[in-house]
Amino acid sequence: MNILVTLDSNYILPLKVMLWSLFFNNPGHSFNIYLMHSSISSEELEGIYEFTERLNQRLHVITLDEDLFEDAPVILHYTREMYYRLLAYKCLPEDLERVLYLDPDILIINSIRELYHMDMSNAMFAAACHNRRIPLKEINRLRLKVQEMEGYFNSGVLLMNLPLQREKIKEEDIFEFVEKKKNRLIFPDQDVLNALYYREIKKIDEIKYNYDVRFYQYNKILSNGLFDMDYVMRHTAILHFCGRKKPWHKNYNGKFLSLYKHYQILALERSDKTLRHLAGNNPAK
Amino acid sequence: MNILVTLDSNYILPLKVMLWSLFFNNPGHSFNIYLMHSSISSEELEGIYEFTERLNQRLHVITLDEDLFEDAPVILHYTREMYYRLLAYKCLPEDLERVLYLDPDILIINSIRELYHMDMSNAMFAAACHNRRIPLKEINRLRLKVQEMEGYFNSGVLLMNLPLQREKIKEEDIFEFVEKKKNRLIFPDQDVLNALYYREIKKIDEIKYNYDVRFYQYNKILSNGLFDMDYVMRHTAILHFCGRKKPWHKNYNGKFLSLYKHYQILALERSDKTLRHLAGNNPAK
Repeated sequence: MNILVTLDSNYILPLKVMLWSLFFNNPGHSFNIYLMHSSISSEELEGIYEFTERLNQRLHVITLDEDLFEDAPVILHYTREMYYRLLAYKCLPEDLERVLYLDPDILIINSIRELYHMDMSNAMFAAACHNRRIPLKEINRLRLKVQEMEGYFNSGVLLMNLPLQREKIKEEDIFEFVEKKKNRLIFPDQDVLNALYYREIKKIDEIKYNYDVRFYQYNKILSNGLFDMDYVMRHTAILHFCGRKKPWHKNYNGKFLSLYKHYQILALERSDKTLRHLAGNNPAK
Repeated sequence: MNILVTLDSNYILPLKVMLWSLFFNNPGHSFNIYLMHSSISSEELEGIYEFTERLNQRLHVITLDEDLFEDAPVILHYTREMYYRLLAYKCLPEDLERVLYLDPDILIINSIRELYHMDMSNAMFAAACHNRRIPLKEINRLRLKVQEMEGYFNSGVLLMNLPLQREKIKEEDIFEFVEKKKNRLIFPDQDVLNALYYREIKKIDEIKYNYDVRFYQYNKILSNGLFDMDYVMRHTAILHFCGRKKPWHKNYNGKFLSLYKHYQILALERSDKTLRHLAGNNPAK
């Protein structure tokens, strides 16, 4: 399976935790990890290489010039890296057909095989909506001026149909849109995805493949006993630690903290033996 | 390593979760699991055999006659199984030197190697005290009439020095004590352990080897930031889900629920492939 990640140095720790959880919970699969970045140092990259190698998986680093997308408008607080996700197809190998983009603030706890191999038909993307908060849906509809918008797709888990993207995504469209809406964009790349490509996204089950852990109590209370920790652990493949508070920050305190921290220790602090034990199971190389 | 468990049918599910977590977090070790029981059906035993066999570990079932310890006094609500732990040495192989008793409401999240191989010197047992609630300590001192008692040992994790036990533990002493104190015993076997063998127990670190998860918030608040989930995941080897509410019950809601439930799925519901992947790492047989 092909996996795409884009990050800076601040996210190397969670990236490793995410990758470890992905490999561990998808035994028997080999992965190609495409890492797009513009500012990670060579020492840090070496560390990521060593990590994936020990786990018998392949890492491909794509270092982007800082002047890539130099025509692109820049918004306060955001760098040009906000375009990497939407314009990834330009930097990935030309013959790549499918790639799954994953945010680093994610923990994989079950198989993603069905997601990865799903029928995308004519969709350019597959993604989940995070739209339980109704007012937010209305605000986004008005803000982005997409009248028929029924939800707001989260771009943290994004399955990409690359041949179709090469055909249809034009960087000028994106830059023009950003230039025009500059003052209204909150999550720039996610807003662009929703505003420009809303009709080209196939919806996936958010509880299975992009579960916003902040909503656990809310879902549990509304479910009349159908939804609980058992349900999540059995059905969810991708836990997404959305929002500003992250489980690797000092005072994070959510329902999934013990699970995340245990994976963090497994991924980063256990002896090579445990890592090899996992790695030995994967047939890559 | 030799592990002792004693249980009835109600604890088969948690037993499997406990064993899976033990094997997974102690890779490269082979285990002999001694299961003492008097009422588990042969179908259920067959299931436990299959489970440990798939994980390349050895199970030894010790079926006790119901009339064993027939001279023993019985206390309301408790069966004679309460004596199994303290008199285990009588039913285990005669040449066994050391065994680690573990309750089934436990999750092993790090190595227990150092605990298992610790120097026991002249102690018959090694155990941890759960005595953070000061009044409880006083009550136990009065209740059990052991004046110099500085803590109350929890019998959920009990390392046993079997040659010394064969020499020193007399079943008559135990029966006599129980007969006399019948009305004062709350946790019969634990009370006997504390009252009769208090001086023969070597203390082990409770946070490392018998962490009562109900105290997490309490420890965290009192620690001035030194104790948190990071600390537990890095230093604790044995999480103990003490008390009436258990993580496999429907409405349990503790800080370690997500971790427990994930292990439950790994142990009981994942395909053989994941199990073999673990098992392949263990050199037993």
